Amino acid sequence: MTAEQFADRHIGPGRDDERRMLGTVGYDSVDELMDAAIPEVIRWHGTLDLPAPASEREAIAELRALACRNTVAVSMIGLGYHGTHTPAVIRRNVLENPAWYTAYTPYQPEISQGRLEALLNFQTMVTDLTGLATANASMLDEGTAAAEAMTLARRASRSRSPVYVVDADALPQTVAVIAGRAEPLGIEVRVVDVERDELPAEFFGLHLQYPGASGAVRDHRALVEAAHGVGALVTVAADLLALTLLRPPGEIGADIAAGTTQRFGVPMGFGGPHAGYLAVRSGLERMLPGRLVGVSRDADGNPAYRLALQTREQHIRREKATSNICTAQVLLAVMAGMYAVYHGPDGLRAIARRTHEAAARLAAGLRAGGVQVADVAFFDTVTATVPGRAADVVAAAAERNVNLRLVDADRVGVSCDETTTPAHLAAVWAAFGVGGFDGDADVALPDGLARTSDFLTHPVFHNHHSETAMLRYLRRLADFDYALDRGMIPLGSCTMKLNATTEMEAITWPEFAHLHPFAPDEQTAGYRELIAQLEGWLAEVTGYDAVSVQPNAGSQGELAGLLAIRGYHRERGEGHRDVCLIPSSAHGTNAASAVMAGMRVVVVGCDADGNVDLIDLDAKIDKHRDVLAAIMVTYPSTHGVYETGIAQLCAKVHDAGGQVYVDGANLNALVGFAKPGRFGADVSHLNLHKTFCIPHGGGGPGVGPVAVRSHLAPFLPGDPLGARAEGRPVISAANHGSAGILPIPWAYLRMMGADGLARATGVAVLAANYVAARLRGHFPVLYAGNKGLVAHECILDLRPLTKATGVSVDDVAKRLIDYGFHAPTMSFPVAGTLMVEPTESEDLAELDRFCDAMIAIRAEIDKVGSGEWPAGDNPLANAPHTAAMVSADQWPHPYPRSVGAYPAGVDRAGRYWPPVRRVDGAYGDRNLVCSCPAPEAFED
Amino acid sequence: MTAEQFADRHIGPGRDDERRMLGTVGYDSVDELMDAAIPEVIRWHGTLDLPAPASEREAIAELRALACRNTVAVSMIGLGYHGTHTPAVIRRNVLENPAWYTAYTPYQPEISQGRLEALLNFQTMVTDLTGLATANASMLDEGTAAAEAMTLARRASRSRSPVYVVDADALPQTVAVIAGRAEPLGIEVRVVDVERDELPAEFFGLHLQYPGASGAVRDHRALVEAAHGVGALVTVAADLLALTLLRPPGEIGADIAAGTTQRFGVPMGFGGPHAGYLAVRSGLERMLPGRLVGVSRDADGNPAYRLALQTREQHIRREKATSNICTAQVLLAVMAGMYAVYHGPDGLRAIARRTHEAAARLAAGLRAGGVQVADVAFFDTVTATVPGRAADVVAAAAERNVNLRLVDADRVGVSCDETTTPAHLAAVWAAFGVGGFDGDADVALPDGLARTSDFLTHPVFHNHHSETAMLRYLRRLADFDYALDRGMIPLGSCTMKLNATTEMEAITWPEFAHLHPFAPDEQTAGYRELIAQLEGWLAEVTGYDAVSVQPNAGSQGELAGLLAIRGYHRERGEGHRDVCLIPSSAHGTNAASAVMAGMRVVVVGCDADGNVDLIDLDAKIDKHRDVLAAIMVTYPSTHGVYETGIAQLCAKVHDAGGQVYVDGANLNALVGFAKPGRFGADVSHLNLHKTFCIPHGGGGPGVGPVAVRSHLAPFLPGDPLGARAEGRPVISAANHGSAGILPIPWAYLRMMGADGLARATGVAVLAANYVAARLRGHFPVLYAGNKGLVAHECILDLRPLTKATGVSVDDVAKRLIDYGFHAPTMSFPVAGTLMVEPTESEDLAELDRFCDAMIAIRAEIDKVGSGEWPAGDNPLANAPHTAAMVSADQWPHPYPRSVGAYPAGVDRAGRYWPPVRRVDGAYGDRNLVCSCPAPEAFED
Repeated sequence: MTAEQFADRHIGPGRDDERRMLGTVGYDSVDELMDAAIPEVIRWHGTLDLPAPASEREAIAELRALACRNTVAVSMIGLGYHGTHTPAVIRRNVLENPAWYTAYTPYQPEISQGRLEALLNFQTMVTDLTGLATANASMLDEGTAAAEAMTLARRASRSRSPVYVVDADALPQTVAVIAGRAEPLGIEVRVVDVERDELPAEFFGLHLQYPGASGAVRDHRALVEAAHGVGALVTVAADLLALTLLRPPGEIGADIAAGTTQRFGVPMGFGGPHAGYLAVRSGLERMLPGRLVGVSRDADGNPAYRLALQTREQHIRREKATSNICTAQVLLAVMAGMYAVYHGPDGLRAIARRTHEAAARLAAGLRAGGVQVADVAFFDTVTATVPGRAADVVAAAAERNVNLRLVDADRVGVSCDETTTPAHLAAVWAAFGVGGFDGDADVALPDGLARTSDFLTHPVFHNHHSETAMLRYLRRLADFDYALDRGMIPLGSCTMKLNATTEMEAITWPEFAHLHPFAPDEQTAGYRELIAQLEGWLAEVTGYDAVSVQPNAGSQGELAGLLAIRGYHRERGEGHRDVCLIPSSAHGTNAASAVMAGMRVVVVGCDADGNVDLIDLDAKIDKHRDVLAAIMVTYPSTHGVYETGIAQLCAKVHDAGGQVYVDGANLNALVGFAKPGRFGADVSHLNLHKTFCIPHGGGGPGVGPVAVRSHLAPFLPGDPLGARAEGRPVISAANHGSAGILPIPWAYLRMMGADGLARATGVAVLAANYVAARLRGHFPVLYAGNKGLVAHECILDLRPLTKATGVSVDDVAKRLIDYGFHAPTMSFPVAGTLMVEPTESEDLAELDRFCDAMIAIRAEIDKVGSGEWPAGDNPLANAPHTAAMVSADQWPHPYPRSVGAYPAGVDRAGRYWPPVRRVDGAYGDRNLVCSCPAPEAFED
Repeated sequence: MTAEQFADRHIGPGRDDERRMLGTVGYDSVDELMDAAIPEVIRWHGTLDLPAPASEREAIAELRALACRNTVAVSMIGLGYHGTHTPAVIRRNVLENPAWYTAYTPYQPEISQGRLEALLNFQTMVTDLTGLATANASMLDEGTAAAEAMTLARRASRSRSPVYVVDADALPQTVAVIAGRAEPLGIEVRVVDVERDELPAEFFGLHLQYPGASGAVRDHRALVEAAHGVGALVTVAADLLALTLLRPPGEIGADIAAGTTQRFGVPMGFGGPHAGYLAVRSGLERMLPGRLVGVSRDADGNPAYRLALQTREQHIRREKATSNICTAQVLLAVMAGMYAVYHGPDGLRAIARRTHEAAARLAAGLRAGGVQVADVAFFDTVTATVPGRAADVVAAAAERNVNLRLVDADRVGVSCDETTTPAHLAAVWAAFGVGGFDGDADVALPDGLARTSDFLTHPVFHNHHSETAMLRYLRRLADFDYALDRGMIPLGSCTMKLNATTEMEAITWPEFAHLHPFAPDEQTAGYRELIAQLEGWLAEVTGYDAVSVQPNAGSQGELAGLLAIRGYHRERGEGHRDVCLIPSSAHGTNAASAVMAGMRVVVVGCDADGNVDLIDLDAKIDKHRDVLAAIMVTYPSTHGVYETGIAQLCAKVHDAGGQVYVDGANLNALVGFAKPGRFGADVSHLNLHKTFCIPHGGGGPGVGPVAVRSHLAPFLPGDPLGARAEGRPVISAANHGSAGILPIPWAYLRMMGADGLARATGVAVLAANYVAARLRGHFPVLYAGNKGLVAHECILDLRPLTKATGVSVDDVAKRLIDYGFHAPTMSFPVAGTLMVEPTESEDLAELDRFCDAMIAIRAEIDKVGSGEWPAGDNPLANAPHTAAMVSADQWPHPYPRSVGAYPAGVDRAGRYWPPVRRVDGAYGDRNLVCSCPAPEAFED
């Protein structure tokens, strides 16, 4: 009565496929292959101590049991997290639709026009509502958005002051994140009651909350003027729903707006993920961190979207980067943008008015009952003063299934939202011991701050208000894109493996989706147990002693790991250790994170085989021995190789007093076979959206837990609401980061078990070596380790071909679209190459389809090389081909239409057609447009 | 604090759109339009007595409360309903995916290749497992499949005997359905213990159960031989899972196999919907009722699928039809077929072995504890004898959350399935008071009946076993098809309106999905309340006194309604009344149903305006006055007109002693404005998959409740397990029919409320009149009622254009695909016309897009008429255009490629491309292939 194994569904190749692949690679078994590939010095020969694998049904049953231990109370805590109605049509067709959630970051714009349009809607929504010129495609959360606003202000300010002033009525978790980011950068944060106290004489930036955490809506115009007077920039952290009724930041002179879009239809999820936002006034757009979608044009001159200004980004700027932000919260930004599309400006205003009306009635009822309510204008939040009784009131409300905010012993905060009902108000009044209020409450919005400007005037916010229209809009956009539900995405270093349905299921259950991050512990027992189990399993998998899931992206995990090292050195009185060694092959984010952690980056070279050059390493250690803080390496290397020198490297750095950071990006090549925490590393971050099956969501959410050995455990991230006392760094606004999606890796680990995980690793390595073996004769494979084997990915070197024929990696990547594939990683870690990571989830048929396509492309390149096709006009240069192009009345090209349309082996009936031809990125950067273009732009 | 109204999401046109549409039609308000359109004689001026509309969130909360009143116990009752694991990837990407569930019946094969392939998989699965030659694309349930097998046997048998022999070990509900169907047809059903008793000397058919309801697996070969000896046909009702291990019906000489595919991944749903199956030996395929998918070829000669042998069907054969089956259970058949695709033959065998092993262990444990277990071979079900204690054992099991089958006072049945766990066995043993069993149980399958033949050898059952591969296969097929998620499906008489996500949500909750239809009442309180409320609301909407939701398709509702009339006449001693008047414009199903209800059909003519000819009606009444049983009319008429004579018609028939049956197909034009039960009708069936938002599912499930005035209430369908006592007819195998999808219409009614429903009706009528007004100048609109208004649909007459130009309705329908539309209803009710029903859910932009397309097509027709384009080679004759066609290297057509590819106004980037060119149906009928073709068939 043994049930089927989930691992057999997760792993693409069946046993027969596996044998055939082994035959090609030249090994008798996966074990034998792994013995050959992995250096014995790091090899771990045990069996992971994990529970026996659960079937899909069992895992769901266990998740239901955990869910039942959470209590879904009515959340009126506020502080940036609000109840919201996710429109069902958006939940089902975005959040529960693999066409959206299995997509990758839209680096290949031709196959990403759907989500790029959705992100442009998001950006337009943010700029319209904030009244600013340019918004990016989302931030990780409000806290990190505010921290990024701070560093942006510092770069842009003409003031040389190190002081950053923060409104005392800012969200407490935002203050904690800002403070955590400021300290290593030498920024001095001053929390000031801006209503009562003087501003410092000099400062480079000012952070205001609008409305404040207390609920107060204040007129900040004089403060803005004062800040500008000393050369400081002003960030307004604003509630977008309130901005439908209130004068927006851009109209009171703010330079920057930051915040969250959570209440636009994205469930609270015990803290995340949601899309933060960041918007800037004109003139600052090129300083924006993160992803920015812009309008450009394709090869036919038609409008086309793509990521703009990528040269600003950390992977380009490395240690000169001003932010380490790699990702956005695309899936959540899409949802929030679609919420605005579905409701339109009138709908949003109606929701805001209902929300305000509830708060106004609430206040009237409290006042009628003799409770003192702060005499200020407010939008959705009321602060009531009940001397000495605050805890009792909060407890009485909790008994009625309503969570309020305990401000201090005397004050209680109550926030309303679109889900607030008369019954909720009655429960609150009862908790305060007052009788309530039955009439029409006066509007409590400030007269002088009423919004007068239009917003969301673009047709997209007016044409999709019926469910039918919305459904079709979502389908149309989804159909533009290529995601894992269409075929392989062989992106080296990105591990685009299966995101199983069962893994995804629990995240939309109310018991996981609708919890406030500051809900009382007794309501979150299930969540906390799930997190504790997950952290334990991740520690077991990696060989570390402690794990924190707080970092809500890989970049944040890097920062958290480096701050742990920093904290460790400082604790030991070695705070002067500030040099971080980084190999030249490292991802640029590593360097950017090191700078953010207050370190100086020193680059270590690589040898001809792509390995860290141990001689150069010795030299650099010698040079910086006394100030050596850490080395940051990726393992297997970014070249996709199990370097044999890793243990030596660790020893050398340790001997010099440094700590070893192993970037966990490539952990999919290690699980079950080697543990970084056992072969010499002190800290790693993991990418749960790679190895542990959280879907990429089209460019986020990511989750990047940090894992450490015990000596670094005291320096793991701390609770944003209590961290200062603990002396830990604060990385994200919510204590458990993007808790709402942690059921995904939990389910993956629970269903795979030790054997399944190890088999997945083995098949991933087998698949990469299979691809290398099949393609080696057509494209040189760069770098290999033991016995000529690669790890879980391989680099195909196109440089000789490019030199001989002019056909570029770009051409090959775009031509792969015609063959029905997403391109491999381009020009990383080596310019002019493609890095292929097939993962364990692709079956042999798909691996062969890819290899066949690459071999066919090689033959096409040869035709260019031989002159049969001209260099400037051939199927590679013109790729990708759209249906419109190949069916045009004129066909001026020197190759047949059929070659453009249906290259060898393509599934004719199921051919994926991109909606645009090759996109000209540079044009868009020169002519920056980052909000929805007028419909006329699309006319023929 | 008024929340948004669901009606505003359901109804496509906003208030501005509505005004513009009214302007075109020439009315100031919808009320004024409806006053003009609907004859006052039937007009009802009240407000429906329904609860005030709930918001989407509130409706979900109420459904959750109802769900909580159901208990999900472990079901070991068996009797054709079993626990099953729906693979999550199938549930999410089929059952929860609008691309699958909002599709229509695949009458337009070019835009239906995805679901046609899925159905061909289903047919192949059934033929392979049963060992028979041909299976249809599913039946409504096992009971009706068995009943259809009986009538098929009667037609095919050379015996003139009226006797049909039914195995006493058949499922009791199957016997009830067979008996219900037999009686009006003059068939004499004899239930015989075929193991012990003699068969009658003469009979035309024999129904055997395999394995039997008791669990016994018997060798039926001698019985088959005996039946064949007297010229009878043999139906084996077989469990498909058992057939992976047992010799299939086709290999023991059966002529027909019938049954259900529920346990192939389709939740029990308290009785349905699931896909029944029906398969026949070679030579009987052209007698198969229902839908049959076959392989044919398209205009390029490539393989293409389409519905085969449609001339057999009831809508063609009318009163000569041998079945009234209109629909299949496509969505569920797709799921069951995909379950086989995902598991493959080895996986299915493993599941069967696990199931059998559980039953064998169960029996061993019972025997070890001294309980007497029938000494027969069995597969999954064990019958235990516990003299006098059966009820106690069943109760003891229920206390342990396990439902067993109470066979009688002394016997208990226990069925195992793929969800059975050791804990379940332990609970059963405990309920019997025995200690259990720990070793390996002996296999209890009969030696002589072991399956030796292969099955599911086609590659489709071998290539999609990883979740990744399955996901992509489902996406690929979904992308072939056009459903409501892409655009309008303006099918007259089919009411393709929004199937809202919130309506769909509850059906996959375990509390609704996993209940056995024979679960004890105390576990089903929520379901029964939901059903009672729904029946009450439907009665209120229609003006009837009582409603039964048992009929699981419209055709079954018709039969139920006519049987109620029959029962009523017989009860009054007027059993000789057997003439059913049916207008010539009626849907063919009406006539077929009348024949099945034992009536004689007399056709009443229509006048020049398309209305029932009241003079001819008088004549027919006069002629048949003494034997007049009923008249069966559709209202508004199938011509889409509110006939003013309806009240007169009802009176005339009543005066002659007949009953009035109003077919509810067009109820979407009446809700809130007229009630059939109040304007003279005695009975109606409703189509919950039309007016009440159950999605069409690509061709099923449908639900067709029957609604009656009080005098017919005693003749409504009865419980299949207790109906004989009640003297009611039995229509479906489960008492509440397709209970599992009743949360959909419940939610629709709950969220729309009286005003929303009436507004929907008004906008539906407005939309039809808007389309008529815009297109009248381009195509004559046939038939109208008061003031030249149509009801909710309009008929565009193409006959003059066809005569003048040769362009057919088919050409226009196929050309609409190029414009991005599903065709309207073709040649019904009038040959050579298109009937357009826009419904209330299409917004003005989509209505205009459709009208613009039709006007552009008219201009194209004119170019053919003028000779600019030759009659045989023009964009209409060549439609639909595939991407392969318009991008072919050669273009021999006299119009530009761009005209074929992108007709005026088409969304170029989002163009829907059908995977095949026009399909040649006749070719496929001549060369009948109804299972998966070899992959080589698709090679270029």
